[in-house]
Amino acid sequence: MKILTRAEAAGFLLAHDNFAILTHRRPDGDTVGSAAALCLGLRKLGKTAHVLENAEVTARFSWLLEGLTKQEAAQNDTIVSVDVASPGMLPKAFEIYKDRVALRIDHHASATSFTDEELVDGGSASCAELVCDVLTILGIPMDKQIAEAVYVGMSTDTGCFRFANTTAHSFTVAAVCAQAGAEIYRLNQALFETVTLTKLKMQSFIVENMKLLRDGRFAICPIPRAVEEAIGVTEDDMDNISSFPRTIAGVEMAATLRQTKDGDTKISVRAVPGLDAAAICAKFGGGGHKGAAGASTHLGLDEAVKAVEEAMLEQ
Amino acid sequence: MKILTRAEAAGFLLAHDNFAILTHRRPDGDTVGSAAALCLGLRKLGKTAHVLENAEVTARFSWLLEGLTKQEAAQNDTIVSVDVASPGMLPKAFEIYKDRVALRIDHHASATSFTDEELVDGGSASCAELVCDVLTILGIPMDKQIAEAVYVGMSTDTGCFRFANTTAHSFTVAAVCAQAGAEIYRLNQALFETVTLTKLKMQSFIVENMKLLRDGRFAICPIPRAVEEAIGVTEDDMDNISSFPRTIAGVEMAATLRQTKDGDTKISVRAVPGLDAAAICAKFGGGGHKGAAGASTHLGLDEAVKAVEEAMLEQ
Repeated sequence: MKILTRAEAAGFLLAHDNFAILTHRRPDGDTVGSAAALCLGLRKLGKTAHVLENAEVTARFSWLLEGLTKQEAAQNDTIVSVDVASPGMLPKAFEIYKDRVALRIDHHASATSFTDEELVDGGSASCAELVCDVLTILGIPMDKQIAEAVYVGMSTDTGCFRFANTTAHSFTVAAVCAQAGAEIYRLNQALFETVTLTKLKMQSFIVENMKLLRDGRFAICPIPRAVEEAIGVTEDDMDNISSFPRTIAGVEMAATLRQTKDGDTKISVRAVPGLDAAAICAKFGGGGHKGAAGASTHLGLDEAVKAVEEAMLEQ
Repeated sequence: MKILTRAEAAGFLLAHDNFAILTHRRPDGDTVGSAAALCLGLRKLGKTAHVLENAEVTARFSWLLEGLTKQEAAQNDTIVSVDVASPGMLPKAFEIYKDRVALRIDHHASATSFTDEELVDGGSASCAELVCDVLTILGIPMDKQIAEAVYVGMSTDTGCFRFANTTAHSFTVAAVCAQAGAEIYRLNQALFETVTLTKLKMQSFIVENMKLLRDGRFAICPIPRAVEEAIGVTEDDMDNISSFPRTIAGVEMAATLRQTKDGDTKISVRAVPGLDAAAICAKFGGGGHKGAAGASTHLGLDEAVKAVEEAMLEQ
């Protein structure tokens, strides 16, 4: 396996003519945005390029791929993957290409190499920033469509510049996108400023029903399955819900407890530096990092709340 | 009154030696961040510079001014105001300096000129970006402290890059700040990712009690004074509360109605492009823009809700 510089990756793209681009399982803004930007850039170079159809792409990002996709790779296509950290991250339909990926562009430092050549920069907040760098080296002029694809990738992977991975380079790339005509305001409104009513109702339930300990420094938020059903939340609504109680001023550690279909309890803990979320979850056979950890237990919701409370008060 | 370019404003600062910097009434991140950055930059040039103490600066921003303030301007101080759109925006204690302001740096296009010389760019998202440009022209190396002051100013005035005023230049300045060592993640967490429990409870009340019209496209949110008191919200909590219902997916126009001490009702309306918030408020003698407008009425809360509903359904 050969690690390429951005310039070498640009040279690789120049040296080939027909491209099929692979995105990852449960596709997010970064894999879709990176694929769209790379495909559009290659076409500007006069290459033939397509993004292979990934059935899991949702309406949130599918507009980026309009006119860019095809069903399957041709025999002579050079296959490039974007934001795919390991072969296991490929959708089932792409597994047949696993050994044919010629170039991997990715920003996951701990990724599993599975290609001959790769451009990987673990310090980059998003894969889209790497794609943007390569397109710049190739002298491809950014237009609005490429700029919006890059911006969707980099802004979703940085939580609109709020995640710890955001770098000076992220802002520089955002400036390039805005300059090239990306409608930053419209994109941000759609991606970050809109919340479903059901998600807000779930947040309201949490606010009204959470248990605060130690003067509000710890929060325990039980979510009965019946409440999820009554509100009618989707899995999209519940995505990242465990980060919500930590946004409350003063809360340093928060546990969110969800009931599963079988009556088990899923525990998610988030903590500020200095506290240890993984230590809480270890008591239930789970794991994770000090900042974010999870566990599953056969305990019912009320028992689990009690057990989490005891574990928290030990810290 | 003479409009200065950024280079001319830099020349003005070079030509004087002792500076007193004025911030505005109800000081926000931009006026405080701009003042701190300008003061620190001038000191790096070997000038004597202070920010005049503004009693209204809250803990949210006062850390930026540590070691930079003094009580009053000396006779030979050159007075510079930052982010002050009109003399009426000066705190009471600064009114004595109204006619002594020698240079105004501001980004309010519709501002009232009240100084001999001014650097005003209505296209700039924040005053802090203008200050950053001037410091750059002066060749002052950005350090972490200046970078954080600039970043606080520009990030708060752009709503962390989410408001419509955000430009490519905003991102370029943010890149400069990050490069100079500003702790972007820590600042964003403190400025944007933390919400008070009382504010969340108010949002919960709105979610649970708002009236949705036309399949959820219009929302009317009455807030009885008794509820504000029971929750114990502060004016900080209520700041910008009228923008909240518009973040709900599908809501295109939202009216928030607050009861005043005297039993009057304050109406705030927010609308997407295509609808007209000002037209609603005009019916109550108020005004504003199509996107955001306000009014006050002697009607009680329930009557006001009915009247707003009628006005909305006419659109």
